[in-house]
Amino acid sequence: MSPTARRLSSIEEMVDARADFARRSRAVGLVATMGALHDGHRSLIERAAATCDEVVVSIFVNPLQFGNADDLRHYPRQIERDLEIASQSGATVVFTPTEEEMFPSGPPAVTVDPGPYATLLEGGSRPGHMRGVATIVAKLFNITRPDRTFFGEKDFEQLTLVRHLVSDLGFGLEVIAMPIVREVDGLAMSSRNARLSEAERIQATVLHRALRRGARIIEEGCRDLGELEREMATVVAREPEVALDYATARMSDDLSVPIRLEGSLRLLIAATVGPVRLIDNLAVER
Amino acid sequence: MSPTARRLSSIEEMVDARADFARRSRAVGLVATMGALHDGHRSLIERAAATCDEVVVSIFVNPLQFGNADDLRHYPRQIERDLEIASQSGATVVFTPTEEEMFPSGPPAVTVDPGPYATLLEGGSRPGHMRGVATIVAKLFNITRPDRTFFGEKDFEQLTLVRHLVSDLGFGLEVIAMPIVREVDGLAMSSRNARLSEAERIQATVLHRALRRGARIIEEGCRDLGELEREMATVVAREPEVALDYATARMSDDLSVPIRLEGSLRLLIAATVGPVRLIDNLAVER
Repeated sequence: MSPTARRLSSIEEMVDARADFARRSRAVGLVATMGALHDGHRSLIERAAATCDEVVVSIFVNPLQFGNADDLRHYPRQIERDLEIASQSGATVVFTPTEEEMFPSGPPAVTVDPGPYATLLEGGSRPGHMRGVATIVAKLFNITRPDRTFFGEKDFEQLTLVRHLVSDLGFGLEVIAMPIVREVDGLAMSSRNARLSEAERIQATVLHRALRRGARIIEEGCRDLGELEREMATVVAREPEVALDYATARMSDDLSVPIRLEGSLRLLIAATVGPVRLIDNLAVER
Repeated sequence: MSPTARRLSSIEEMVDARADFARRSRAVGLVATMGALHDGHRSLIERAAATCDEVVVSIFVNPLQFGNADDLRHYPRQIERDLEIASQSGATVVFTPTEEEMFPSGPPAVTVDPGPYATLLEGGSRPGHMRGVATIVAKLFNITRPDRTFFGEKDFEQLTLVRHLVSDLGFGLEVIAMPIVREVDGLAMSSRNARLSEAERIQATVLHRALRRGARIIEEGCRDLGELEREMATVVAREPEVALDYATARMSDDLSVPIRLEGSLRLLIAATVGPVRLIDNLAVER
């Protein structure tokens, strides 16, 4: 029998549980999710369970981070299955607040400003997205007060933002990054993949192929960002049903633009495949 | 002999002290200050001491909230005297981080956006001020994790902002407001008063006189905001050395503009007297 996580649906219950953990000196890990859990989330929860006494998995489809009402409406929801996956992976608490509970007076007046990440890459393509992420993550940190929090590298800009949020605003907690979990053909796991048709599912592998092509030409000596971007775009163009948003390289610590393709780089890509926008990235050391 | 507060100058020491308070279930009160403590601060610290087991007084002249480098440079500093006042009033810890400690990489990239308070009243007159306040207060909350925090009503917009910061971002703590402490002639206590000449010190009482005049004409039946503002401005105009910034009324819960002068109102005033900008306010129930 798999262990069962406690489901808490109100902030008050969560705060009480947290206070109890504090009294018993239990180290708390937080895995913040929007549900529709897959093997990527599983790896975060398992890692948290291996290093913390209590593992809180939050499931909240955050309206603040959706610019597009359609994307919010279609975002997959499967709470019973999520509770099972979370429990099996080692969660001790699943925190599932309602929107009414999180934002009783509607959108908050005071928010967290993501600074440069508001307009960079994902921020640039999805106005308000990064502010929504920063605000909800700060609020979840305040409610659950984790000692450690676990984020996947798939949302690499989100991970970078969370690191800066934690250091700039003095949240005294450790941010643990976990590698992207991929399907056998290379597609990065994402809750959004469920919305792809069979044909689109195959086309979607072009994101990962473009990233590998980028990594290869850097290995072969390419030092020019424009050339790299053109090469990656050429790979994507071979799938006419896939609309590229960006394919580029950034410095991996703060996502600044590299003058030359040297040092610790991250290749990042975003494209729309059928009804969904997908993202992926790859580390390259040079 | 007066009890002696422990002085902690690093975030690490403060976080350790806070963890120790948590283990011993000590209720923690925070009084966030920029030093130059006066009787207004004293009332906050004494109130905190009466209701909390541990009282942290933070002293940090926050560069983020000064738009004007001159104002920052001239802001009064008197750390030895402050330690004595804090101790006498019941502080158990005085937290005095350096700027280097609080912002090791310079101004933070991720900040707290004060929303409407960015451009309202003080926010409008001092660009960046409210964002600087919101960001430092959030960081101090994260470092000291108070159960209760005590703010004076003198900085009424700051108090309103802090209330929204706490509810919107889910800081689980109680915000306690304390009344303005005044000199015998009505001047609101402020660290900036120390910079007034003898003549300016007398002129400065016009702020409080204008507020009282405003309260009186509302009592006498005035319901029109424009008329109220003109009357208050007329009082200030009698002191030709005093430059009025604003004299107005707002709804006291969120500082929205009243359609008619009814309900729970706050009269607010700001003016420059000699080298300093002073603010004051007064509650009016109608």
